[in-house]
Amino acid sequence: MTHSVQLLGISNAIVDVLANVDPAFLDSIGAPPGSMTLIDQEQARDIYSKMGPATEMSGGSVANTVAGFANLGGTAAYIGKVRNDQLGDIFNHDMQSLGVDIRLPAATDGAPTARSHILITGDGQRTMQTYLGACLELALADITAATVGNPQLILLEGYVWDIAEGPALAKKAAEIARNNGSSVSLSLSDSYCVERHRDSFEDFVRNDADIVVADEDEIHALLDTDNIDDAVAKLVDYGKLFAVTRSEKGSVIVQGDTRVEQSATRVEKVVDSTGAGDAYSAGFLFGWANGKTFSECAQYGTTCATKVIQQLGARIEKGLRLEGVN
Amino acid sequence: MTHSVQLLGISNAIVDVLANVDPAFLDSIGAPPGSMTLIDQEQARDIYSKMGPATEMSGGSVANTVAGFANLGGTAAYIGKVRNDQLGDIFNHDMQSLGVDIRLPAATDGAPTARSHILITGDGQRTMQTYLGACLELALADITAATVGNPQLILLEGYVWDIAEGPALAKKAAEIARNNGSSVSLSLSDSYCVERHRDSFEDFVRNDADIVVADEDEIHALLDTDNIDDAVAKLVDYGKLFAVTRSEKGSVIVQGDTRVEQSATRVEKVVDSTGAGDAYSAGFLFGWANGKTFSECAQYGTTCATKVIQQLGARIEKGLRLEGVN
Repeated sequence: MTHSVQLLGISNAIVDVLANVDPAFLDSIGAPPGSMTLIDQEQARDIYSKMGPATEMSGGSVANTVAGFANLGGTAAYIGKVRNDQLGDIFNHDMQSLGVDIRLPAATDGAPTARSHILITGDGQRTMQTYLGACLELALADITAATVGNPQLILLEGYVWDIAEGPALAKKAAEIARNNGSSVSLSLSDSYCVERHRDSFEDFVRNDADIVVADEDEIHALLDTDNIDDAVAKLVDYGKLFAVTRSEKGSVIVQGDTRVEQSATRVEKVVDSTGAGDAYSAGFLFGWANGKTFSECAQYGTTCATKVIQQLGARIEKGLRLEGVN
Repeated sequence: MTHSVQLLGISNAIVDVLANVDPAFLDSIGAPPGSMTLIDQEQARDIYSKMGPATEMSGGSVANTVAGFANLGGTAAYIGKVRNDQLGDIFNHDMQSLGVDIRLPAATDGAPTARSHILITGDGQRTMQTYLGACLELALADITAATVGNPQLILLEGYVWDIAEGPALAKKAAEIARNNGSSVSLSLSDSYCVERHRDSFEDFVRNDADIVVADEDEIHALLDTDNIDDAVAKLVDYGKLFAVTRSEKGSVIVQGDTRVEQSATRVEKVVDSTGAGDAYSAGFLFGWANGKTFSECAQYGTTCATKVIQQLGARIEKGLRLEGVN
C-alpha cells in the first residue's frame, strides 16, 4: 500500500520563548529546575513580564520531531491547533518551509497560539512554563479520515492527554490509523505527564501503540521502576518497540527479547538541552520509516540529539544529513 | 543639570526574522548580498513563504543600540512605533526587560509591527528585506517635550528619514534636545539610506548633531570620498565627534584635529554580522555618557561588536560587562 506521507504528528503546536536565566530566577517564580509546568494566560503574562530579553522559535515536542523528520528528508504532515495570529503564522510557516503538510487551518477565534517560556540556566538545563492557549481547543472533530489520511506512522505525544478531548482524539486517531494500515507511535512527553495519565497511557501502550519513545524518567513513571534493568525486563513483556533515551548514558532499544544499547556522543558544551529527546525521536523514527536496523535507528537518533544540544532552540538547523541515508 | 536617562533612542521598532540561506536563495529573490531593501506587506508575505524555518528576535538598528546600552548598565528610554500585536509585545517586552523606558503606547490600529527578514549566508553576512509596517506611522505629534524629556543624549537613525514625517520629527527632537540641554547623535544606518537622504543628513550633521556613528561606506556616501584618509580630512572640518567603524580594520574616532585609531579584535568565526555596528555604538556611547576617553569609548565599542558577531542575532546576550566600568 502507498502511504501519502511517512509521518503524521498530532500534538500541541507551540512557539517557544527562550531566555537565559539565573537559578535564582527559577527560585523566585517557584519553578523546580528542569520541570514543565502548565500555566494560564494571566500567569503567562506575569512570567513574561519578569523574564529577560527572549528569542522566539517554533517548538512543541512532537512538532519538533516532525520538523526534524522533514528536515532529514522524510515526508511529513501535522495536526495541531494554532490561532490565526502572528505566533500561529510563525508556527505554520516554519513547518511548511520544511515541506510539512499542515492539516488544520488556523482557528479564527478562541485562545491565542500557545507559547512555552523556556528558561535556560548556565548548565544548559531548561525549565518550561507553558501556556497551552489554542492547543486546548484541539477537538475530536479535528481527527477525521481526511485529516489523518494514511501515513506510514502516526506519532502522538503524551501532552495531548492534557487537552479535554485529548484521550478520545488519541484513541480515534489510532483507530483511523489501524484502518488505514498506519502504525502508531507515542512519545511519553515528560514524567509528570505520565503520572497525570498513567492508566490511560498504560492502556494506550498495550492496545494502540506499536512504538513508544520516552526518556528513562518517563519509562520509570509508566512502569513504577527505578533502574533501567528492571524497566527493560518489564518492557520485554509488552512486545512493542521502545526507544528509551538516557541522556549521557545513551539510549536503549527494546522489542521483546531484542535489546540494543547505543552510547551517547560526548559533547564539549551543552548549550541548551531543549529538544534533545524530540531530535532523537526524529532520527530514530526516520531510520525506522526507512527500514533501517534498530542499531542504525538509534545511531540516527543520537546524531540528531547530539546536534541539537549544541545550539539554542529545539529544532536542528536546516540541512542536517545522515551518512548513508541521504 | 540632572538628566532623567542617559540615552533616548528614536528609531524604527522592528522584530527580526532570521534564517540561514544559500547564496542561491538571495539570487532567486533578486537581493544583492549585504543589501537592505524596503518591501511592502505583500512582498513580505511572499519572501516569508519562500524562507526556511526562522528565529524571531527584537531588532532595529538604533533599538539594538539602546538595548545594548541598557544591557551594559546604562539608563535608557525609547521612542518608536509598534502595533498592539504579538510582535509588538515581543519588541516592547525585550526593551522593558532591560529597564528601557518605552515612551509611546503600542498603536491600537494601523499597520502591524515591522519585521526585517534577515537572510544569513555561510560567511555570516546578512541581507535584509524589511517591511516597515507600523514604523511608517511614527508622527511629528509623537515627539513632544513629554516623550523626549531631557536625556543626556538622544540618538536618531538615518532610517527615520524613510518615514513620511521622519525628517520633520528628527528636527523637532533635536530642537527639544537642545532646549533641554541634551546632546544629539545620529547613526547613518546604511550607505543606500545616506544616498537617499544625503542633503538632509549633511544639514543635520552640520546643524543638529554632536555625535555621528557610521561605518566607512556610510561616511563615504555622505562625503563623496573613497578612502579613509580623504574622509577623515573632510570630517575634521565639521568639528563634530565621529565614530567610524571599518569592520576588520577596526574603527577611527575623529573630532576636529583629534584622531584615535582602534584595531578590531580577531575572531575565529563570524556567526552573524547582524548588529555589529549597533553594538559598537552601544559600547561607544556608553563610554561617552560615562565620561570616558575616546580611546576607551572605542575599546568598549569594539568589545561589544566582537561579542555580537559571534552569536546569532543583533543584540548582545544579557549581562555583558565592560572591564573598569561595571
